[in-house]
Amino acid sequence: MKYIVGVDVGGTNVVVGTLPADGSTIHGLVTESTMLDRGPEGTIEQIAHLIAKSLEQSRAAIGKGIDVVGVGIGSPGPLDPKTGVVLVTPNLGWTNMPLRDRVSEAVGLPATLENDANCAMLGEWWRGAAQGGRLVIGLTIGTGVGGGIVHEGKIFSGASGLAGEIGHASIDSDGRRCKCGNYGCLEAYASGPAIASRAREGIDAGVSSSLASYANGKLDEVTAETVSRAANDGDRFALDIIRDTARFLGGAAANMMNILNPDFFVVCGGVTEAGDHLFEPMRWEVRRRAFRPVAQSCQIVPGLLIGTAGVYGAVAAFKNRTGKNA
Amino acid sequence: MKYIVGVDVGGTNVVVGTLPADGSTIHGLVTESTMLDRGPEGTIEQIAHLIAKSLEQSRAAIGKGIDVVGVGIGSPGPLDPKTGVVLVTPNLGWTNMPLRDRVSEAVGLPATLENDANCAMLGEWWRGAAQGGRLVIGLTIGTGVGGGIVHEGKIFSGASGLAGEIGHASIDSDGRRCKCGNYGCLEAYASGPAIASRAREGIDAGVSSSLASYANGKLDEVTAETVSRAANDGDRFALDIIRDTARFLGGAAANMMNILNPDFFVVCGGVTEAGDHLFEPMRWEVRRRAFRPVAQSCQIVPGLLIGTAGVYGAVAAFKNRTGKNA
Repeated sequence: MKYIVGVDVGGTNVVVGTLPADGSTIHGLVTESTMLDRGPEGTIEQIAHLIAKSLEQSRAAIGKGIDVVGVGIGSPGPLDPKTGVVLVTPNLGWTNMPLRDRVSEAVGLPATLENDANCAMLGEWWRGAAQGGRLVIGLTIGTGVGGGIVHEGKIFSGASGLAGEIGHASIDSDGRRCKCGNYGCLEAYASGPAIASRAREGIDAGVSSSLASYANGKLDEVTAETVSRAANDGDRFALDIIRDTARFLGGAAANMMNILNPDFFVVCGGVTEAGDHLFEPMRWEVRRRAFRPVAQSCQIVPGLLIGTAGVYGAVAAFKNRTGKNA
Repeated sequence: MKYIVGVDVGGTNVVVGTLPADGSTIHGLVTESTMLDRGPEGTIEQIAHLIAKSLEQSRAAIGKGIDVVGVGIGSPGPLDPKTGVVLVTPNLGWTNMPLRDRVSEAVGLPATLENDANCAMLGEWWRGAAQGGRLVIGLTIGTGVGGGIVHEGKIFSGASGLAGEIGHASIDSDGRRCKCGNYGCLEAYASGPAIASRAREGIDAGVSSSLASYANGKLDEVTAETVSRAANDGDRFALDIIRDTARFLGGAAANMMNILNPDFFVVCGGVTEAGDHLFEPMRWEVRRRAFRPVAQSCQIVPGLLIGTAGVYGAVAAFKNRTGKNA
């Protein structure tokens, strides 16, 4: 069996794991807060260090002689998978960063680079919630709303490698201004910070809610996760916020279904902890808006590979791009 | 050289032509108003009659002995290209109509069936405005707003053959009610009838315009074409209507670019007669809304195969589906 290292670089954490080529399990899973204060050099050193650490743990667990064939990397974009260069990432402060080749040189292994949200969906298709899917579309809700499209087991990358920014399709052309410059993007309503600020706006306006008590009593520490937890405990206002989120997500999902006719729509990220409070109204919104046959042929599911979808997907993307397998 | 007959069945007209397999020209182009008053049987007889007429004219022009290998059909959907059955078409009054096999039997030739808006885009990719495109997305503006996606020379059909309904992606989740049941669909703003009713609403509200004079003085005969003609003659209100249409189309195109990263976005239909009055503000709206690299990598163009894109595309789809070529 050959092994491939998967790397998921995020604005908050770097996650690394070592997988056999069939993806049947994950070894040497290591995570650290992303080191940003020493610039790109610091982050690359950190990634190389975490790869070495993951391999060391994997060798200790399964044997010194394992055959490691390469490293698949997922990173925020926009990026060019062909050249392995990250064009620009505000969160990481990179511009035209040849991430793939720098990591490859640092660890002495071939490497590939793909968009992190695309990797997460490829991971969910390969070993997660969307196994067997022909056309898998999904969202990863975090600091932003990342989108990914997987068509017949491959990342759908469009004419020049930039497809998948579903979080920046507008659901209201005169709606909330988005950081990207557009108006009414899904991300402006359904990202983690957008969920939290909708909650804070309501409480500022005088809605009664136990929400603040989930955030050490501090309104400015309310997050999408605290909203989900309060909803699960029955807080009516938190439930309203989750239901509104479900409507935004359902509207966007219905659009994607009418446009692309997927068989799986996957939602990943902390907000899925709200479970049926999120997914039931989301499914209802889709039934209300999408054509019946396309809605009927699509399963709406939460991601299963919590925290590791990007690592699985980066490995699957390495296999797709290099043709290297078991 | 082998020949293939292309059939474009619409709610208004049936258009038929005979093409050599390389699509270098079109022979025996014949058109009739769609016969609806004798039910599906009448329409199928009419299609068979028009195919015979097109072949007769083609043989007269290029020789009795031409080798005709089959018939490609484009029809409004939703339909199942695999079984050749039209599921339902409100405009034609069909339900579960085995159109492909009925036409095939009537003319004694193999046949294929695809969605008409997909055919139009495939035609534009093959021999029209989007030649050489890797990912072509487009709209056909008529009674509705049809959408089509062509990926690497093939119709992108999604998980179950129903992809491409871009006209039914909502651009305003609380917007105008659409006939499909959703709210704010592009079709509710930018279809021919929607353009005409936005114009009539303004004139009803007292806007001064020469528009009615383009429609025999009758407000209820104002159409998207009369609006385009009045705009080309400098009518200020007609120009406003076209500019609003451009903004709706540009917003939808920007969404498609962020989601799918096409290299061509094609707009077909009578409203493109407004030319730069439509395309300049549309391109501006895209630049304002889409990510810069995706906007820069996409050409926004009018369709070139006026009235015949669907026939060309139906022939190209026959070739793709049967593997039959020159």
